[in-house]
Amino acid sequence: MQELAKAPVIERWGRFELFLPGPEDGNPFTDVTFGARFRQGRRIIEADGFYDGEGCYRVRFMPDTLGVWAYETVSNVPELNLVQGTFKCVDPSAGNHGPVGVDREVHFAYADGKPFFSFGTTSYVWNHQDEELQEITLRSLAKAGAFNKIRMCVFPKHYDYNLNEPALYPFAGSLEKGWDFTAFNPAYWRQLERRLEDLQKLGIEADLILFHPYDRWGFAEMTPETDDFYLRYAVARLSAFRNIWWSLANEFDLMKAKTMRDWDRFFRIIQERDAYDHLRSIHNWHHPGIHYRSNLHWYDHSKPWVTHASIQHHDLHFVGEWQETYRKPIVVDECRYEGNLNHGWGNITAERMVECFWEGMLNGGYVTHGETFLHEDNIIWWSHGGTLHGESPSRIQFLRRIIEAGPQLGRLSADFQWDTAAGGVDGEYYLVYFGSSRPGFRMLPLPEGTTFTIELIDTWNMTITPLPGAYEGTCRVELPGKPYQALRIQATNQ
Amino acid sequence: MQELAKAPVIERWGRFELFLPGPEDGNPFTDVTFGARFRQGRRIIEADGFYDGEGCYRVRFMPDTLGVWAYETVSNVPELNLVQGTFKCVDPSAGNHGPVGVDREVHFAYADGKPFFSFGTTSYVWNHQDEELQEITLRSLAKAGAFNKIRMCVFPKHYDYNLNEPALYPFAGSLEKGWDFTAFNPAYWRQLERRLEDLQKLGIEADLILFHPYDRWGFAEMTPETDDFYLRYAVARLSAFRNIWWSLANEFDLMKAKTMRDWDRFFRIIQERDAYDHLRSIHNWHHPGIHYRSNLHWYDHSKPWVTHASIQHHDLHFVGEWQETYRKPIVVDECRYEGNLNHGWGNITAERMVECFWEGMLNGGYVTHGETFLHEDNIIWWSHGGTLHGESPSRIQFLRRIIEAGPQLGRLSADFQWDTAAGGVDGEYYLVYFGSSRPGFRMLPLPEGTTFTIELIDTWNMTITPLPGAYEGTCRVELPGKPYQALRIQATNQ
Repeated sequence: MQELAKAPVIERWGRFELFLPGPEDGNPFTDVTFGARFRQGRRIIEADGFYDGEGCYRVRFMPDTLGVWAYETVSNVPELNLVQGTFKCVDPSAGNHGPVGVDREVHFAYADGKPFFSFGTTSYVWNHQDEELQEITLRSLAKAGAFNKIRMCVFPKHYDYNLNEPALYPFAGSLEKGWDFTAFNPAYWRQLERRLEDLQKLGIEADLILFHPYDRWGFAEMTPETDDFYLRYAVARLSAFRNIWWSLANEFDLMKAKTMRDWDRFFRIIQERDAYDHLRSIHNWHHPGIHYRSNLHWYDHSKPWVTHASIQHHDLHFVGEWQETYRKPIVVDECRYEGNLNHGWGNITAERMVECFWEGMLNGGYVTHGETFLHEDNIIWWSHGGTLHGESPSRIQFLRRIIEAGPQLGRLSADFQWDTAAGGVDGEYYLVYFGSSRPGFRMLPLPEGTTFTIELIDTWNMTITPLPGAYEGTCRVELPGKPYQALRIQATNQ
Repeated sequence: MQELAKAPVIERWGRFELFLPGPEDGNPFTDVTFGARFRQGRRIIEADGFYDGEGCYRVRFMPDTLGVWAYETVSNVPELNLVQGTFKCVDPSAGNHGPVGVDREVHFAYADGKPFFSFGTTSYVWNHQDEELQEITLRSLAKAGAFNKIRMCVFPKHYDYNLNEPALYPFAGSLEKGWDFTAFNPAYWRQLERRLEDLQKLGIEADLILFHPYDRWGFAEMTPETDDFYLRYAVARLSAFRNIWWSLANEFDLMKAKTMRDWDRFFRIIQERDAYDHLRSIHNWHHPGIHYRSNLHWYDHSKPWVTHASIQHHDLHFVGEWQETYRKPIVVDECRYEGNLNHGWGNITAERMVECFWEGMLNGGYVTHGETFLHEDNIIWWSHGGTLHGESPSRIQFLRRIIEAGPQLGRLSADFQWDTAAGGVDGEYYLVYFGSSRPGFRMLPLPEGTTFTIELIDTWNMTITPLPGAYEGTCRVELPGKPYQALRIQATNQ
């Protein structure tokens, strides 16, 4: 065992990585088992390692408690077996709040307790574009300041406006000669990991989509054995990144080669292999209610391995009912995108995109953005990243600042009427949003015995105007009679 | 029998009225039965008469075929019994197309075959306001040119902004001394009939609401016997007006004193007593689908005595499904109102009101307008009539001109994608509406072998712009990428 003084220092929720040289012959991806047990006191956490090509074996670990951790490798290859060592886990640096988990049943928080209000965006294959464009995307994310989660795919995408070939593929082999589904392409994964790091530095969670239907390479129709082999490899490589979320699929119900039993199995594999219990969900295409008397169902988010519901739906009024149904956080990960695309899911106005955020958030859920403007070079944020052209991100950032300054929004016993979305903490804090409704005044059902201040928020013009006076009990508030107004109502400190 | 030369001349679907003096003693409303049989050839139509006060008995008849009609009265009072006469039915005057009935399963047409495209408005108790305001309302309807149906109530209304007393009440008695539910107030009914005549001159159908819940006088909680007595009297007086529709209720499900059996009975009474089979429906408050997994149901519009579905619902996408369910015309008689009221149902934008019309109509249904702007004297179109202040009526008139210039809109086999509302006649005529979606271009699924012209319609700015060239088969059309656009696509004459 190394001396403690020489042991590496890893910050809490940082990433320890052990590298060992090992055999290159045969197929190391399938022939060699490799992992490690990490121990602190009586706690033992087993982490799978992985083969990273060129005789290089790695195992990663994200420590969640301070102090000394010891490890010992496990392998079917003697030179990789029973290697021991220690490292010291120290306080996290500024901005490192740990991985995000479920908090207070329907919300999220970082591991250090700081609430995480999910403001997502969507750029499915930004990581498959050329290097320059990827850098532009990162700069756009930093500049917008609106988003702290991004939906992105492991596999490349085939679809309208998505006909180029990526530089790298997850599997070994090539487009010309075919794929070797028994081996991975470490260069692909290292590139992906670099982008996960870049996102982490921006404070952005990577909602990593493991399968999707938009495929011309065969990745949507692999055998069950290959699917499982791929999942185990992804989890071994990536689960020690604190900003990872597992999205089993984009639009799982369009993947005709997969059955519900497959999806259940995928969830359980990830649940078993991911030592850190990162967030797990799955995203639908169809939805119940698309027809008035529909019997269509999406994935049953009440299954125990689902941590939160990732939902495609255009109507944010249902967030409260989904919360009641699943008793889990609701993330509306697609509610149509701001843009002018020929496709219906990609041509809503910025006004509507922003309205979705306010409605979804104030109903207690979380909402994800996307942008789909026609572009002469077919560089469209929703798939390729690049530059944000829309009018919604600045308004989403404005909302984010408001939300992050307040408490997690719960359902209210006070009834602010059905044409609003309203959330807060009874008797203390209310956010009330009128959307495209435009009342000229309103009677507010505030409690007696507490005085409140009220601010009028113009969610489109991004202004916050304190209303004169104090408010208490059932009281009348004058409103400007135009769309996209909201109220922030706060109890005054006595 | 009178000589034919002296017989009155009544135009087809006009109104013949026979007046006879009779007893004034006792309670003529309950003691005297009176009616007439109208005969032409082998056809006999029985019409109930009614007591009009001051010893005056009347029976009315709306002839639907040309030529001589003979009649003979029937009464339990000898002086009113077996009175005979004739009149001659002649061609209708210009603008008289007869009563409106169901046409082609889900549409409407006048009795002469002219299609009736219902463009409704709502002014629940305009007929209960002072005389001057009623005249202003009629002038507003004439000026707008947008509406050919109006929803209005027999009974006065009690609700926010509706606290004044009307000049006249349907029943005898008074506010101070109480109502005599065994007798009617003929002055009230004559005033109502005058307004039905006024509407008829404007080409407007009166969708007459027979019961409603917003009551402080007891009219919403009469006994079943009084309800039935009232309905028989209303039908006897009003059914010979060709522009009458029977709306059994506004928001029937808020009338807690009535059961579903009551509503069924009311329908059957009207069906039996109305010799002309005027349109009959009933209007809901709750609706299935207001909650995501709701089991709430509204009135079953598939019952045989319902001629069309009168629906309150804010989402016009469901029109096609309701058509399939009921196989009857769908009239969305409340989808929220243009205005700035404190209430959620009364504060949508003009843009949304117009969008509802385009969506509902192009999905094959019919839509009804309402307007609810706060007003210093509480004169609000939705209840009181008066002046129209909104921006939607001119756009509704624009749509009406387009609709009336084309065929009745059927469902299309061509799929114009889910973000549009589209109706027409396959291969001949298509109206496609993009609503708040704003595609920059679109692929259209037109048939091969026919060439089409396309016009771009800006539904908000009310412009119609022919697009250059001819279109055929699957073809691309450039669009301006802004909301509220539509296309009119017509086969060119070969």
